[in-house]
This record gives sequence, structure tokens and C-alpha cells, in this order.
Amino acid sequence: MNIAVTPPVTPEEPNVDLALKDAREQVMKETGSIPTGERAGSRKVYVAGELFPDIRVPFREVAVHPSANEPPVTIYDSSGPYTDPSVTIDIKKGLPLVKSSWQLDRGDIAPVETPREVKPEDNGHASGKNLAPRFDTSRHRVFRGVEGRPVTQYEYAKAGIITPEMEYVAIRENLRREQTAPCIRDGEDFGAAIPDFVTPEFVRQEIARGRAIIPHNINHPEVEPMIIGRNFLVKINANIGNSAVLSSVDDEVDKLVWATRWGADNVMDLSTGRNIHNIRDWIIRNASVPIGTVPIYQALEKVGGVAEDLTWEVYRDTLIEQAEQGVDYFTIHAGVRLPFVPLTANRVTGIVSRGGSIMAKWCLSHHKESFLYEHFAEICEIMRAYDVSFSLGDGLRPGSIADANDEAQFAELRTLGELTKIAWDHGCQVMIEGPGHVPMHKIKANMDEQLKHCHEAPFYTLGPLTTDIAPGYDHITSAIGAAMIGWFGTAMLCYVTPKEHLGLPDRQDVKDGVITYKIAAHAADLAKGHPAARAHDDALSRARFEFRWEDQFNLGLDPETARKYHDATLPKEAHKTAHFCSMCGPKFCSMKISQDIRRDAQAQNDAGGSLAEAEAGMAEMSAKFRAGGGVVEVKV
Amino acid sequence: MNIAVTPPVTPEEPNVDLALKDAREQVMKETGSIPTGERAGSRKVYVAGELFPDIRVPFREVAVHPSANEPPVTIYDSSGPYTDPSVTIDIKKGLPLVKSSWQLDRGDIAPVETPREVKPEDNGHASGKNLAPRFDTSRHRVFRGVEGRPVTQYEYAKAGIITPEMEYVAIRENLRREQTAPCIRDGEDFGAAIPDFVTPEFVRQEIARGRAIIPHNINHPEVEPMIIGRNFLVKINANIGNSAVLSSVDDEVDKLVWATRWGADNVMDLSTGRNIHNIRDWIIRNASVPIGTVPIYQALEKVGGVAEDLTWEVYRDTLIEQAEQGVDYFTIHAGVRLPFVPLTANRVTGIVSRGGSIMAKWCLSHHKESFLYEHFAEICEIMRAYDVSFSLGDGLRPGSIADANDEAQFAELRTLGELTKIAWDHGCQVMIEGPGHVPMHKIKANMDEQLKHCHEAPFYTLGPLTTDIAPGYDHITSAIGAAMIGWFGTAMLCYVTPKEHLGLPDRQDVKDGVITYKIAAHAADLAKGHPAARAHDDALSRARFEFRWEDQFNLGLDPETARKYHDATLPKEAHKTAHFCSMCGPKFCSMKISQDIRRDAQAQNDAGGSLAEAEAGMAEMSAKFRAGGGVVEVKV
Repeated sequence: MNIAVTPPVTPEEPNVDLALKDAREQVMKETGSIPTGERAGSRKVYVAGELFPDIRVPFREVAVHPSANEPPVTIYDSSGPYTDPSVTIDIKKGLPLVKSSWQLDRGDIAPVETPREVKPEDNGHASGKNLAPRFDTSRHRVFRGVEGRPVTQYEYAKAGIITPEMEYVAIRENLRREQTAPCIRDGEDFGAAIPDFVTPEFVRQEIARGRAIIPHNINHPEVEPMIIGRNFLVKINANIGNSAVLSSVDDEVDKLVWATRWGADNVMDLSTGRNIHNIRDWIIRNASVPIGTVPIYQALEKVGGVAEDLTWEVYRDTLIEQAEQGVDYFTIHAGVRLPFVPLTANRVTGIVSRGGSIMAKWCLSHHKESFLYEHFAEICEIMRAYDVSFSLGDGLRPGSIADANDEAQFAELRTLGELTKIAWDHGCQVMIEGPGHVPMHKIKANMDEQLKHCHEAPFYTLGPLTTDIAPGYDHITSAIGAAMIGWFGTAMLCYVTPKEHLGLPDRQDVKDGVITYKIAAHAADLAKGHPAARAHDDALSRARFEFRWEDQFNLGLDPETARKYHDATLPKEAHKTAHFCSMCGPKFCSMKISQDIRRDAQAQNDAGGSLAEAEAGMAEMSAKFRAGGGVVEVKV
Repeated sequence: MNIAVTPPVTPEEPNVDLALKDAREQVMKETGSIPTGERAGSRKVYVAGELFPDIRVPFREVAVHPSANEPPVTIYDSSGPYTDPSVTIDIKKGLPLVKSSWQLDRGDIAPVETPREVKPEDNGHASGKNLAPRFDTSRHRVFRGVEGRPVTQYEYAKAGIITPEMEYVAIRENLRREQTAPCIRDGEDFGAAIPDFVTPEFVRQEIARGRAIIPHNINHPEVEPMIIGRNFLVKINANIGNSAVLSSVDDEVDKLVWATRWGADNVMDLSTGRNIHNIRDWIIRNASVPIGTVPIYQALEKVGGVAEDLTWEVYRDTLIEQAEQGVDYFTIHAGVRLPFVPLTANRVTGIVSRGGSIMAKWCLSHHKESFLYEHFAEICEIMRAYDVSFSLGDGLRPGSIADANDEAQFAELRTLGELTKIAWDHGCQVMIEGPGHVPMHKIKANMDEQLKHCHEAPFYTLGPLTTDIAPGYDHITSAIGAAMIGWFGTAMLCYVTPKEHLGLPDRQDVKDGVITYKIAAHAADLAKGHPAARAHDDALSRARFEFRWEDQFNLGLDPETARKYHDATLPKEAHKTAHFCSMCGPKFCSMKISQDIRRDAQAQNDAGGSLAEAEAGMAEMSAKFRAGGGVVEVKV
């Protein structure tokens, strides 16, 4: 990476120790600070489509030790071409294109003759050495939907058309399970409709019902399609973005790649300050995941940061600017209506959404209804033309436990439900943003109200944080709420990093946030009984029980950290095959004793028999015991 | 600290940066590695008893900036005399005594004429320079209950007697709230009976019903009494202990003090290997929190680590040894019965409890019922004589998601319920240990089964971990489950550190585990609607909204880390009073805009009026809006 405005950055990792450093050096090849290379113990594999043979859906495959006599484990892979050793990464050129020309071939989209020109205000009038370098967009043709033709995934779905994107996500969701394979269904899904196996037709139906979206701007052909919906795997979003105070181009592209490497399914660019436009080009052209933004942030920059000076015209122009760049979803705070603002007056923490407070200030100072609300149909028309999905923002979400589930919050939520129907009527894909700060006993009501008023459009929540007392640990206060609301039906969880409320996340914070939210999302998948979820836990547990340490590390969400922790007390290679760990030492290891018990039972039960027979014998005795009320004598 | 066997340890803190180092140096006075001194921004205060004026119940008081015009916030304080600047700490002498001689004065307890002598096997036959130095126990008189007299808190409670311990914990639980003060009750308690205000009589009733315990060996007079029960604040336990592989006396005392400094309510010493006896003396004599152990660990050491060689006599001797030292509760795996062992044969991870696997192995190899189960009445008699509480161990808890809530686990749980009644009949205090690894949708069943079969004896759970896929992050996978089960009714949560499954926790891991579990416990208190819980959140949220940065840090669970994170991007002192932070910068701060909105509303509403009046005006308009179906014009 060679960008003049900021010196090449050695990625900050303040707490890096030697072990981690080695791991980092291993993955950082000739791409400057951008981490590439396969994940530890993993291999990148692809599955082709059947309806659309050009599709290549990526997975991460973790092989286990031959002694286990088990197939490799397939893991959902959001890391993009960066972890494919056969792809040469050059972030000055951007990623290879994933999307085929099928929409163009159908005549549904067409190149825009005169795309919007970049204006000085798009970058906050930065100039000279303060201006971030422009990404070379000469290869990037700008498209738009053709009048009278379908363009969004929602429109295709409604028309009964299965798109390549739909088959792509169907394959992706099944994690290489066979349709005919037996399927564990163990969970409580609160009325969801999770299928045993995801077919392209099921995807189409879910999108047509508005219960799922594939956020995918036609101008972002680098995206590997993914689906957000209650009946699919729970997804996570990571926020990045420079601010008026900090950050640079290099940092943001690095954070994007870093976040997706660890499992972020989507990334939101929340940049403020100068150079917003140019940095966004770098991000989008190098993003294999959908990118979301909050256009009001840039619109506000264009009017010098004075909320009262915002106009529909400035905002509209910003939407087109970002839609042409390829942003996949916009957060639009159209539910912050003038009459709701007074409902926040007695709150402990007022309005904590930036977008929400900007709009509230505009409404109050003009004594007018929100221009986002008034122009909502026009917004829909613009977004439809590029298939930019709505993420209807919760500008009045609670910012503290005290303010959770109040009338301001729910009045806005009901409005978002009204707007959802309007957006659908215009052919748009929609998801709904949710809180925030909510104590555990009020979380379920959030999900129930959302399902009731927003017609099952996917819910996308920030946390929620379940207490306010732990600044510095809000990734954890919120992971509790995130796991629960994901279980209850939320489709995507927006991560929170340890720096929440305190400062801008650095690289380590981004990783901590992503891993923490992968935990929350997976815990939710397990509890919902998603049929693809438990194989991963079971494979890791078997590795644990059999002391396959390397497998245990590699199957974990963060092999480097697990290995480092293990090696902190037992560093020798021999310890990686030891049948004990430093917690109990060799004499006390319960797993070892438990294995001995099994082996003894086997030996006693049948000198020539198999372990399976021995276990069958034990199971039989156990059944006898239960039948006999606990009096049968057990001889093993 | 001056112990010959291991060199004075400079506490390891691998990730310490300068800011933290300063903070650490500040708190580490002339006590070697033991952290002393008040917590950041805090003052130690005491409240005297009314029934027993000698009682001095400690609290941590956090003052807020005078501009807030608010009283200081009172926080539960488990840190003991280490954070009292008026107490001189000398760990060679041990802590000052808290317990008065009331039991001796009543003739309920008496000195043991010939206490058990320390035997070579108590320290694993360590000798010479391998033997950890003995704590000077000459000041420590050993007591025992007098035949025919009450001795346990349970017996006093049943007899209608309010003890000083009961008043102590009553004061402690109220966090200096006035009995007559208004009380927010907002939560879902699933049938608990949490009172608005805790009286000593309420404590007595709860203990008499077996719904709460005060773990407090009469031989541990250094303890500041605390209560564990569903109708009280949720507590947390931290595990420490050396192992055959690692650790030393210094490390363990340091970890004890460190864990309680950050909020551990109880500490379990899970030492294995040599020197168990001597290290335990150091721990108990320096512990102001109750100390728990698993006596089978030491018993196994005494028979050379061979489970089959365990005998009732060795175990019994170990109970007396530890009871005389002052251990406050014993984990006893008496529910691992011979007939249950085969139920584990088809599990993915077999038996993962160390105690459970030791007993299972003993049962199988002798073809006999567990000697703990067979001798349970005798165990009760021994423990009653010192008021050692039972922590009935869940030796068959699941070690993986796959094994959760299976018949082995629940068969044992029902047995623990039977044993609870026997222990109560003998006058003992009892709590019940719980899992383990449980996906979210199976957590509630654990609590329900426990309440049903164990007669509301307090539940004390490890996590539970809600997924198996994140070694290195199991403090988080388990905090999700811990918060939920705490909400459902669990009285104490046993922490899990990031090193779980991988290695022995160091200092940083202990702190991470404690803070994470303080979060889970507090989130549970909030959700249960505990009346003393929310004041802390609200005080911090007000500080956040008013940009009182120092207050926000000091009111948090970990001021040092919060301050460090803030200063990473905005290090200057001036930024501590800035009305913005680095996340959004000055122009975008939603809280600032929200404050502006409030101020504007005030100005417009009544040029000479108060903010309260302005808000009242806004509230009125909002009511009009709602009544009018959203059509009233709002003028603010």
C-alpha cells in the first residue's frame, strides 16, 4: 500500500507479545499492513453453484488430526480473497469482481452515462497534502436500474425469479452439509421458520416476504453475497471509520480486512471529518463484504457541521454519491419525527444516536417534520435504482438502562414499521435497527415489538448493553444482550468494542469486538437450534476430550490466542500431545480419568469387545438402573 | 512479604502500559506484591450495626463532581482491609479479626484441646527448600462446636436467633439505602422474594428456610460476613490455587487479594500438588472473604494420586484438617453415585469435574457406592461442628454443549436434593453447584430443576458456557450464561477466566474473570429488579450524559482501564472536561446535541423558566400528541 497522505503505517498492536507477533508476521505478506494468507490450520475451499455454475462460494476448512478419523470441519468464511493464497492482493487496484453481468445481460441495469462528479465538499474541502489520495476508479463503471425493469433482490424474489445471489447464499448457509444428511434440531426458535436445509427457493421466498435481505448494491460487484434474516445464521457487523480526531486511509482499509478476517459479515463505514468520499472508495473497492453507511454524517459535513443547515437537496445528492460508489445499505433515521422529540426530554441520556440527534435538532430548529420522513418515497426511489438496502435507523434508541423501552423508542419503532411497508411497495430491501442499552428482562419485548410492528423485516441491533457500569468492557456487557436478542430472532448483531463510550477502536479492539460478537451470534444459532450450528462445537469438544490440542486451537475462533494461552504455561511442543494441561497437571486430569474409566469399562466388559460394545453394555446397565429405581447392581 | 521458598515476585502483568503501571505503583505500598490502598476515586466507609454496635460494615464510596449536585454513590465492597488506608497490612501476621467472641461467650463453641497436628502428607511430603514456609499459626486458636449447643448460622436461624453475622449482611445488602427511601422495582424475578429493604430478621428467615447461607467457619474470624441466596445480590467466586505444574505461595496470596480488590465475593483455593496445607494457611489468614476448597484434591495427594487408594479415613482426616484451618465451605461430590457413572459412557466429553472423575474412578474400581454418599451423615457432623457450609458438587456436570442437561447431570442433581435435606437435618448450611456448558435455551431448565429438586437451597454455577468454539474467550462465552442463570435465580456465579481449558490464570486473567463476572452478576441483579442495583447504572449514565469523564471512570468497574482507553486518543487533561469524545469528535456528539436540544427547548419555552418547567412543557406537548393521534403541532 502506497498512499502519500499518511505515512505507511505499522499496524498498532500495543499488547502484542512475541507469539502473536510471529503469527502476525506470518500472515502479512507483501501487502504492507494488510493481513493476508490463510487462517491458522485452515484451507480455503469453494463450492460451485448448480443453477449458476459460475458461482464459487468460499468456506474455511479445518482439518483435524488423522487419529480422530473425522472429516474436516467447514466454517463460514467472510474473509474474502485475502485468505486465498492464489489471489494476488493489490489494494490500489481493488478486489477481483464476484458479480457476473447477469443483470446487465437481462437489460435490468445500464451504465450511467454521466455519473456524479466528485465535488470538493465530498471530502470536506480537503486539498493539497490534507486530501486523501483518490482511488483509481477508472475500472469502476457506474450502473443504475433501468426504468420499468426489476433491479432489487426483493423485486426478483417477488417476481418468482431466483438470482445467482440467492443460490450463492443458499450454498453458503448450509456449510457444505448434504441435503440428505441427518440433521440435529435442538433449540427453541420462538416461532421462526428455520429449515433443515436452505434451498435457493427458500431464500427467494424469505426475501419476497421481506424476512431476509441480501444487501448488495449493483455498484459493488466485489461483494460475496450474504443473507440477513431470522431464519438464517445470525450475522455480525463491525463499525470502522475515521473521525475528525483520528484515523487515516491506511488504518481504515486495514481495519476492514482485519475485521472480516476474524469474521465480520458486514462492515459499516462511519467516517466523519474530511476525506469521507475518498476513503470510502478505498474501502468499497477492497471490501468483499457489504458496506453500510449513515449518509447524514457526510451530509452534515457538507453543511459545515450545522444541523439546521441540512437540506433535502444536500442529503439527496449524498445518497446518489454513495449509491454510485457502491454502498450496500444506508442507515436512514426517518423515524425520528418531530412529535417524538419531546418524548426524550425526561430521559437520563436524551438522544444518543448521532443521526437521531442531528435530525431532532433539525426538526426542532425549523419547527418542521423531518425531511427524511417527508421525502421517504423519493429516498426509496433512489435506493431501489441501485438496490441499496434500507437499514432504518433507531435514532431514539435508549442510551442507558434507565431509558430502555420507553415511549420515545417504541413510537419510533412503530414508525419504522410504517416506513418498511412503503419501502417494500417501492421494491426496496429493508432491515430495522434496534437498541442500545436494555436490561435483560426488557430484551424480549424489543424483539416482540419489532416482529409485531415491522412485519418480520430483519432486526439489526447494537448489543444491547445489559448494564451501564462497565466502561472499558462494553463488548462484554453487550455480548450478553446480543446473544439473547439473537436467540429471540435478531438477524444481525452490530458489534461493540471495549472502547465503546471511551474512544476510537484500534486494531486489537476491532478483533476483540468481532470475536466477542461471533460468540454471541453462534450462541444464538445454537439456542435457536440452527441445524448447521452444533457441528462446530461438537468437533471442538471431541478434540478437547481427546487431547488433540492443535485441533482445539485451530477449531477455535482465535487459534493464535488459544495457542498463546496454552503455551504460557506449557510451551514445549511435546505438551501439544500431552494428555493433560497445566490447570490440573497429569494426576488430576478429569478428562484423562474419564477416558481411563471408559477404557477400564471396556476391558472389564468384554476383553475382546469393542469400545462401542462396552458403551452399549454400560448404557444397558444404566437403563436397568433407571427402570429399577436405582437398585440394580452395576458391574462394570 | 518475605518467604524463602520462592523469590519475591514482581507481579506479572504482561500487557501493562505506562498508565496502568502508574496506577499499580500508586496502590502498591510497602507490602511487596500485595496491592493495597483505596480504589481509584473511592473512599472506604463503614456503617455500624444497631443490634450489634460493634459491627462495622465496609462500603466503597465514590464521590462525584460537585457540579452534579448529587450524593456520593455507595458500592458493595469485598476488598477487605487491604483498601483501608488506616490498616497496616502484614501478611506474615494475617488480617485483623472481624468476628467477636459472641459464640464463645454463649458457650456454643470451645477451643479444641489438641488440634490436629500437621503431618508430612498434608504438604505432599515436601521438605527442605521444597517445603513452603509455615504460616505462624500461634495466634490462631482452633474452635469447635460444643456438643448439644447450636453452632451454625442455620441452627441459630432455626432457633429464632439473629446473629451478628445476620445483621452484618443485612446492612451490607442495602448499600446504605434508607429503609424509608423510595425504591425502584423494575424487573422479572421468576418468583423470587426479594424485599424492598433487607432486615436482619429477613436474613434469619431466609437462612432458616435454607434459601441463603452465610459461609463462615468459626475458625475463620478474619471473614467479613456475606450472604449467598436468591433473594440477595448475586455474588461471584474466583478460583485460585497452585498446581503440580505452577505457582507459589506468593502468587496465590497475591491473586487472592487481587481478586477481592476487583470484586470477588468468595475465593476457592483449588490447589493441587505439594504444599497444599501450608499455602492454605497463608490464604485463609489473609482472606477477608470466605474460602472454599475441594477436600478430595488434597485427599488424593495424600494417597499418591491414585484414586483407587482413597479411603474414608484419609478423606475424613482431611476434612478435619481443613475445618480446623478455617475453610468456610467444602465442595463435596457426594452425588456421584456408582449407578450414575454408566450414564456418562456415551457423552462427548465424559466426566469433566475433577472431583467427579476421581469419585467415578473409585466407585468403578471398587464396585462400590461412593464413600462420600455412604458416609454423608458423618460428613455433616464434622462440618456442622465448625459451621463449614456444604457446596454440593456437580461431579457429573456437562463439559460440552452436546452433553448439557442429560440424564447423568439431572440424576446427580436430584441426589443433591436428597443430600440437602440430610445436611439440613444435621444443622448444616448448604448450597448446590451447577454447570458447566449449556446452550442458552437449556439454561432455564437447569434453574427450574434445581429449585424443584433442591428445595430452594442456593444455586452456585460455573458459567455456564453457551458455546464450545471459543477457547481463549471462555470468560465471555460463560458470562452470557452466567448473567442469564443469575437472572433466573442463581445466587453465586463461579468465574471463568480467559485461560479456561488452556492454562492457569495469571494476574491479568484473574482480573478479567472477576470484572466479567461482576458484569454478569450486576446484569442479573438489574433484570431481577433488585432494588439496590440500578442506582449505580443511573449515576454512571448521568455522568456520561453530562460529560463528567472522571466520574464516569471512577463509577465504572475498572477506572484504570476506562481512563487508559479514553486517554489513548485524547490524553490531555483538558479532554477530561471536554463535551465530546474521540468517537464522534466535537461536531457530531449526540449527547452534546441532545443537551443543546434540551437547552433550546428551555429557552424557547420560557425565557425565565427552569429546565424542569421546560421539560414539563415538552412532556405536556408529547401527551397532547399521543392523545391527538400524532396531529398536534409541537412548538418548542
